Amino acid sequence: MKYCMKCGHRISRKVPAGDHRERYICESCREIHYQNPKIVVGCVPEQDGSILLCRRAIEPRRGFWTVPAGFMELGETIAEGAARETREEACAEVEIGRLFASVDVIEAGQVHLFFAATLVGGYGVGEETLETALFCKEEIPWDEIAFLSGRFALIKFLEDAGRNNGVHLHRVWHGE
Amino acid sequence: MKYCMKCGHRISRKVPAGDHRERYICESCREIHYQNPKIVVGCVPEQDGSILLCRRAIEPRRGFWTVPAGFMELGETIAEGAARETREEACAEVEIGRLFASVDVIEAGQVHLFFAATLVGGYGVGEETLETALFCKEEIPWDEIAFLSGRFALIKFLEDAGRNNGVHLHRVWHGE
Repeated sequence: MKYCMKCGHRISRKVPAGDHRERYICESCREIHYQNPKIVVGCVPEQDGSILLCRRAIEPRRGFWTVPAGFMELGETIAEGAARETREEACAEVEIGRLFASVDVIEAGQVHLFFAATLVGGYGVGEETLETALFCKEEIPWDEIAFLSGRFALIKFLEDAGRNNGVHLHRVWHGE
Repeated sequence: MKYCMKCGHRISRKVPAGDHRERYICESCREIHYQNPKIVVGCVPEQDGSILLCRRAIEPRRGFWTVPAGFMELGETIAEGAARETREEACAEVEIGRLFASVDVIEAGQVHLFFAATLVGGYGVGEETLETALFCKEEIPWDEIAFLSGRFALIKFLEDAGRNNGVHLHRVWHGE
């Protein structure tokens, strides 16, 4: 970050008055440009004891399997975001259930939130997906799971086995 | 947002290839500037059945009471963020417990996450706080609570009464 997105002047790193951290501050209009973690929302879509996974068509981790998940957008709730990502990646409608996992991905500046979900009807292959498939518990391709956060979500989802054990918290330093 | 923070040129609103939404795109370097919801992290600090609240010294809602909460920073977990905010606003150390509430504040582009917490030791008055006090259940100043999200968190915290009922989801359109 080099320029102020409000006025176009150069920005520099300074600790604003009353703050404890260096921020990007515009040298002209004095606007403070905060940087904050982003939210990734996803779900574990279940149907008759099997779980819907998507094989990624894009980097990072092209060719690896993942639960439907992606960046939350403005104007939606976390549950709506998880349903939207499932629609986009797996062409599938889901009923969003309980929030059961939260993973801090420190190095990426992200928080990943995962819901339990029930698959309603069929599924397909979205633009960012190579292949979509239902896996029963014993078939899950553990060696080909794209991200540590999704792996954690799958493990806890199976351990919970439908019980509400609250939110499982986890921290990883990088995503893969 | 008018200027590219990478190269300083003008930006415009366009739908990038492979996307479904208008984004801010630099007309010179083609950088896409995504805008995403921000995370607010907070907690309900409890000690012997009483809850620690802070009376706000800053706008919005100066003079109203709130649970300790604020914007999550890069480089911390959601639990660490909630503990930091409590340190800053109430000069208090807490043991962070379960994540029990998530509130989508659509109009503000925020997601508010609340933990149960146990107050460890004493408390004080932070820079953004006028006053800090412990309230037993019957004393909570419901008519003077600053934000709808914190109000929801307090209600659900009391209803849960220490039980793990998972995460209570809620949506509000504005914060106050």
